[in-house]
Amino acid sequence: MDKILRINMSGEVPGFKIEDLGDYEGLGGRALTSAVIYKEVPPLSHPLSADNKLVIAPGLMSGSAAVISGRLSVGCKSPLTGGIKEANAGGQPSQMLGKLGYAAIIIEGKPKSNDLYKLFINKDGVQMTADKSLAMLGNYDLIDKMKEAYGDKIGCMSIGPAGEMKMSAASIACTDTEVRPTRHAGRGGVGAVMGSKGIKVIVIDDSGTSIRAPKDKERFKNANKIFAEGLKKHPVTGEGLPAFGTNVLTNILNEAGGYPTNNFAFGQFKGASKISGETMAETEIARGGLATHGCHKGCVIKCSGIYNDKDGNYLTKQPEYETVWAHGGNCGIDDMDVIAMLDRIDDDLGLDTIEMGASIGVAMEAGLLQFGDANGAIRLLKEEVGKGTPLGRILGNGAAVTGKVFGVERVPVVKGQAMPAYDPRAVQGVAVTYATSPMGADHTAGYAVGSNIMGVGGKTDPLKPDGQVELSRNLQIATAALDSTGLCLFIAFAILDQPETFNAMVELLNGFLGKDFTADDVAELGKSVLKNERDFNAKAGFTSKHDRLPEYFKNEAFPPHNVTFAVTDEELDQVFNW
Amino acid sequence: MDKILRINMSGEVPGFKIEDLGDYEGLGGRALTSAVIYKEVPPLSHPLSADNKLVIAPGLMSGSAAVISGRLSVGCKSPLTGGIKEANAGGQPSQMLGKLGYAAIIIEGKPKSNDLYKLFINKDGVQMTADKSLAMLGNYDLIDKMKEAYGDKIGCMSIGPAGEMKMSAASIACTDTEVRPTRHAGRGGVGAVMGSKGIKVIVIDDSGTSIRAPKDKERFKNANKIFAEGLKKHPVTGEGLPAFGTNVLTNILNEAGGYPTNNFAFGQFKGASKISGETMAETEIARGGLATHGCHKGCVIKCSGIYNDKDGNYLTKQPEYETVWAHGGNCGIDDMDVIAMLDRIDDDLGLDTIEMGASIGVAMEAGLLQFGDANGAIRLLKEEVGKGTPLGRILGNGAAVTGKVFGVERVPVVKGQAMPAYDPRAVQGVAVTYATSPMGADHTAGYAVGSNIMGVGGKTDPLKPDGQVELSRNLQIATAALDSTGLCLFIAFAILDQPETFNAMVELLNGFLGKDFTADDVAELGKSVLKNERDFNAKAGFTSKHDRLPEYFKNEAFPPHNVTFAVTDEELDQVFNW
Repeated sequence: MDKILRINMSGEVPGFKIEDLGDYEGLGGRALTSAVIYKEVPPLSHPLSADNKLVIAPGLMSGSAAVISGRLSVGCKSPLTGGIKEANAGGQPSQMLGKLGYAAIIIEGKPKSNDLYKLFINKDGVQMTADKSLAMLGNYDLIDKMKEAYGDKIGCMSIGPAGEMKMSAASIACTDTEVRPTRHAGRGGVGAVMGSKGIKVIVIDDSGTSIRAPKDKERFKNANKIFAEGLKKHPVTGEGLPAFGTNVLTNILNEAGGYPTNNFAFGQFKGASKISGETMAETEIARGGLATHGCHKGCVIKCSGIYNDKDGNYLTKQPEYETVWAHGGNCGIDDMDVIAMLDRIDDDLGLDTIEMGASIGVAMEAGLLQFGDANGAIRLLKEEVGKGTPLGRILGNGAAVTGKVFGVERVPVVKGQAMPAYDPRAVQGVAVTYATSPMGADHTAGYAVGSNIMGVGGKTDPLKPDGQVELSRNLQIATAALDSTGLCLFIAFAILDQPETFNAMVELLNGFLGKDFTADDVAELGKSVLKNERDFNAKAGFTSKHDRLPEYFKNEAFPPHNVTFAVTDEELDQVFNW
Repeated sequence: MDKILRINMSGEVPGFKIEDLGDYEGLGGRALTSAVIYKEVPPLSHPLSADNKLVIAPGLMSGSAAVISGRLSVGCKSPLTGGIKEANAGGQPSQMLGKLGYAAIIIEGKPKSNDLYKLFINKDGVQMTADKSLAMLGNYDLIDKMKEAYGDKIGCMSIGPAGEMKMSAASIACTDTEVRPTRHAGRGGVGAVMGSKGIKVIVIDDSGTSIRAPKDKERFKNANKIFAEGLKKHPVTGEGLPAFGTNVLTNILNEAGGYPTNNFAFGQFKGASKISGETMAETEIARGGLATHGCHKGCVIKCSGIYNDKDGNYLTKQPEYETVWAHGGNCGIDDMDVIAMLDRIDDDLGLDTIEMGASIGVAMEAGLLQFGDANGAIRLLKEEVGKGTPLGRILGNGAAVTGKVFGVERVPVVKGQAMPAYDPRAVQGVAVTYATSPMGADHTAGYAVGSNIMGVGGKTDPLKPDGQVELSRNLQIATAALDSTGLCLFIAFAILDQPETFNAMVELLNGFLGKDFTADDVAELGKSVLKNERDFNAKAGFTSKHDRLPEYFKNEAFPPHNVTFAVTDEELDQVFNW
């Protein structure tokens, strides 16, 4: 994994070259995407212009035998936030690109024509083909077409109509182990950037390649074993997530009074039990789906699943907690089949489920629909967003735009990106992450929910400001490093609680790379990633004033705990003062 | 003019109190609005929240016998830019409020209900009445209704449907000498803030009041005479503007190759002569309208007029150059009757003509309409914006939102506000103002066009960066002071070219106030206003990175001169380094 595929879409005919890693040697995943964006993209460029770049980078260990190491980073200047973006996805492409030896694909320039391109990458090289017949295909039909042409051993990264329409909530779909477009680099509008480059789909075939070999086989193998065992013995990664998926959180957050209901109006949802992970798993099993399933080969947590419809036919993958919340409680909807349908439509159109749920929630607050109007939500997504009507384009450009267009004051965004499924007043640690992450509101950037709510790595009181800044700082640093390795964020539960699992993870990396990194070295990597990201954002015009929640979270008490966000601005400004 | 009317819309029943000027003693117009916003509005508050304030302030000499002193300042945190805003308007309200003794009306809070209020202000006090029957009335019908109720000696400030819908391009209409809603505090969405406060109209009756007396009668009277003579003898203020209105600029800018055509694609418009000030004046006179007319009593320039339709019936006031350009050349439309109709619709709905023309231009670039589609433009404005359809709300929220929603890269805005009628590449002095003004792209904030194109105050080459920063700096300082006096910006032509007219202006102010200000003192006032505005913006998150034009103006040459914007970022950062 020592080469970069650099594709230039400008010029009469788009072209590509294969380069050495050069200055980027030693970097992978988020460390690599953020380094390229920081170094190569003018911070004030328009996100849809030729000057922006789309960077796709497997994690450092992707394509190896390291368990759960198949996460992919997609970076660019975000059309949603105007800042740097790394959107992280599961699915098969990361492993496949790793095996093909690509540390990154960098897509730059902009086609002169309206041509739409298909890329095919295998061990023999790269083919670029203009193919207008792909225009406005949904991801499902598109992938079916790719399977017809290239067989069913492929992995794909693709955009749906939302990306072609350059919506700021557009995602890039990555195919899963069944070659379905269900795993998404969701956040920040990375799909719109792919659309602006005129690329519809990247088809990857890793036939004839081998798994990536570690530098120190023995060390790697031993560490991998201990690491996998550690994941299996932790109650979250070994029991809760496999059995109920990420949606195990619905009941937990609802009980904690931190479940944002009806566009963050209150913290408990009457219909929560109807859409909980427990209910969902039961339904999945009863309908012949799957409640336990990995999003990519090599996963040992298996928090995914298969959600069939009432007739037992495949509808969508098991919707994530964030999706169930965004389209569920956030919109007052408690019908799991409706939520699963919305998930399917999002995946097909190529949209971030969090952003879309937040957009619809804001539209409901604006009075376009009543909270709880399930059919209305489906209509908005399918008929308006899917068809690119003006209303659909508003919603597809995210909650901030929706709020602006309809004159709504309560819009739950930071840096233009919608908040996920934890109210910042009732889970104040993750609120610090929302406020300060260079990504905009993003729970994965520093998942303080673990400590605040579940006591992972030690308990902090979710309703109080004490300790939240330090917690978020440490998690943001660790996550930036983790997002560079290809390892799934969910290992965090086990490595935070079990020192031997943490050590095994460091050993795994050292065995694979033939290095002797310490825990401090890993933290330094995380800090360097955050520094690049923060520096890029500063040059794009971001200041400490952008590291703030909307004012209403400080002024309006949140039931049932009736708390406001109490971390001060001065404290927030200490997050990156390490 | 020593009291503040402070209206609080929060609480069970909105209320008001009348206060002394206190800390704001000695301030008027923009100096006062910007001081109040700076001191009283939390910089990170939502523009439509209870924390924002709408400040209406006559100029220091408004309501006096000083010629052309009836300009009004309207300030708030802007829903369009997110920064501080002063929108300046003509019409009668400034003189009337001055005569009633109000230095400012400050509207704060937010009503709990959806009630819509009417304010009536006369010498006996203030009446506030909830009146839902006014909801969604256009400004023309609304003012007719007010005349029926209060007689035809009133002055009104009002919002149309756009303000009620809280569109970021919504204006506040001020009635003219015929009590028609034709003079607008147009820029920055001040009408949306008035809408968020639940106030539909402020009716002012100055019956029984006297003209404001100067402190030094003799000095004032003499200065006023010399000042008026100076305005009359300058070719721009004494001939060009009275004869052809501001639209005298169409031919001038078109000849200079700086007339932004088809969304700033090129600098000369084939249809220019059909919509020039010369043609317009001829049409107005032929149809029994007026080509020379003051927007408020006491004006000696009279750049306004009356535009009748083909049947000789009143259609709208004489459209300004900026309007004729925005709805004309910028959209490829060369039919003066269509442009006049668009002006009428904007005035009726309560919309900034510049922003709306720019929005429609961007929509044309996005392919929603062809450039030149006159009927399409009328339909968009009347049927979409006027009826608040999703597309209408997109357009009514300005060019930046329109560009974002439709994925357009070439969007001519700074700080979210649309550029006016001078291409920044062909008129580089005004481009420095666009980039750096705390208001967002605004020609009036530092009208370097006078020097760049007409040689007023000395000629600077419009196509080169040399001298533009100093020019814009000096003009921005002078304008900030001027906008505080109530004097019309158009006196600038005469005071810049004629030292005795400049001196007469300072004398006029001194005679009125009983002061001995020097030219330096006036400059200090301007600097202090800009400092408040810049400080507010900094606290709202603005940095030097926001004092930039969109990148394409630096990268794409503009025909016919094929120049790019060449003032460097480092030079731009020197504008406020005085």
